Amino acid sequence: MVLESNDKLILLTNDDGLYAEGLRTLLNIMEEFGKVVLVSTIESMSGMSQALTVKTPLRVKLLEENEKHRIYACNGTPTDSVKLAINQLLERKPDRVVSGINHGANASVSVLYSGTMAAAIEGCLYGINSVGFSLNDFSRTADFSHCGKYIRMVMQAIDREPLPEGICLNVNIPAKPENEIKGILVCRQAKGSWVEEFQKRKDPMGKTYYWLTGIFNNHEPDATDTDEWALANNYVSVVPVTVDMTAHWYIDKLKSTFTE
Amino acid sequence: MVLESNDKLILLTNDDGLYAEGLRTLLNIMEEFGKVVLVSTIESMSGMSQALTVKTPLRVKLLEENEKHRIYACNGTPTDSVKLAINQLLERKPDRVVSGINHGANASVSVLYSGTMAAAIEGCLYGINSVGFSLNDFSRTADFSHCGKYIRMVMQAIDREPLPEGICLNVNIPAKPENEIKGILVCRQAKGSWVEEFQKRKDPMGKTYYWLTGIFNNHEPDATDTDEWALANNYVSVVPVTVDMTAHWYIDKLKSTFTE
Repeated sequence: MVLESNDKLILLTNDDGLYAEGLRTLLNIMEEFGKVVLVSTIESMSGMSQALTVKTPLRVKLLEENEKHRIYACNGTPTDSVKLAINQLLERKPDRVVSGINHGANASVSVLYSGTMAAAIEGCLYGINSVGFSLNDFSRTADFSHCGKYIRMVMQAIDREPLPEGICLNVNIPAKPENEIKGILVCRQAKGSWVEEFQKRKDPMGKTYYWLTGIFNNHEPDATDTDEWALANNYVSVVPVTVDMTAHWYIDKLKSTFTE
Repeated sequence: MVLESNDKLILLTNDDGLYAEGLRTLLNIMEEFGKVVLVSTIESMSGMSQALTVKTPLRVKLLEENEKHRIYACNGTPTDSVKLAINQLLERKPDRVVSGINHGANASVSVLYSGTMAAAIEGCLYGINSVGFSLNDFSRTADFSHCGKYIRMVMQAIDREPLPEGICLNVNIPAKPENEIKGILVCRQAKGSWVEEFQKRKDPMGKTYYWLTGIFNNHEPDATDTDEWALANNYVSVVPVTVDMTAHWYIDKLKSTFTE
């Protein structure tokens, strides 16, 4: 892969691992927009959030190179992959960081746990226009054939109007036939929470262990301006995500609490 | 430990592990406010962000119980510890989730990577008033003796005026003698980024590996309303943190980008 000065350089990663269908789908689409460097893990890294690897060494291996892309395997989290790529593997700072297509939605508070969105947020922290894409179907055999149209629309929108500093996009695509999808809805993160239900089991030695499971509880199912509503009503949700977690509106009130 | 109906129930965790001095300091202080259930890991879990354990079973062990507290060891992340405690270990939903005292500051964008803050955010997602405390000294021998005064002030402020839904607190304490600390500053998350510098090394087999290091770069060192400024000027920083990552102000502009 030779990077010409007029080529867009796109860094691609995900949290489902190198052999995920969603990643391969996104690789093919991204090659329409520029030269792609893909860095991901062999194993899936779902639910890793913005985790960093600080206690074990990171390793990386070039697996494949052709005229359009290079593919590396990395043993770290999605966030590690983005950092390592930008610092060690890329010819220059990339023009885009894209992540996904995740097998499973990352709407509402799932943005906080998602490795897919963490990679986009990491790109954003480097001042790069970044997007995380997810399909609302977590199965390994999910059908991604309708995703390309909406992914192209999002990438073209960013080309026309680059995202401001500190903002990346969280895009969730319904798992529906193309003719049932009504279009793109720019919206906000729904209020919700996971009702965790751990499965409590006994191992062959009689010792207790737990598996994390959980059911999502939408706290505002009737609000029509949320990502959960969009997905439930066959829209592609696009949420602008900020790296600033400050609750600005509460600062003055909180100040008064301390001076009481 | 017998939980009376008028006892406050406090869930305590951290990301530096059960033997961290900061955790023991916070345990002693929290016992002034209620009955404490502590759930943490044997090993440190720094930089784990909001990561969940989904691929390996979680295990938990009761290590110690007296009239004031119970202490459990858990093999998961700080977020796992909070979820498991609330779902499986506690008598009832706790009144407070507190996390720390972290060895090392979690100001600016470190809130995104911090396991300490992830635990507080997780408590917040359960609708519980939650706080993460950090000391601006990452050494194992850090001096926490001056922290109690400010931790009590924060806990008392929440008692007077409970936090609204979806907001928790990120509290960072300077590593300075008590007489040099000027007080509490309610402020916002500073804009900044890590200038990552991976150390590239060769293992005894001649294979390359990387260690993540990094230097923090404050993008607005002159802004006097940020957590980084507070710490640098000997104030305890208190930032209200929201679980809503939506960049609300950009929604209308983004809509127009898609209809161009």
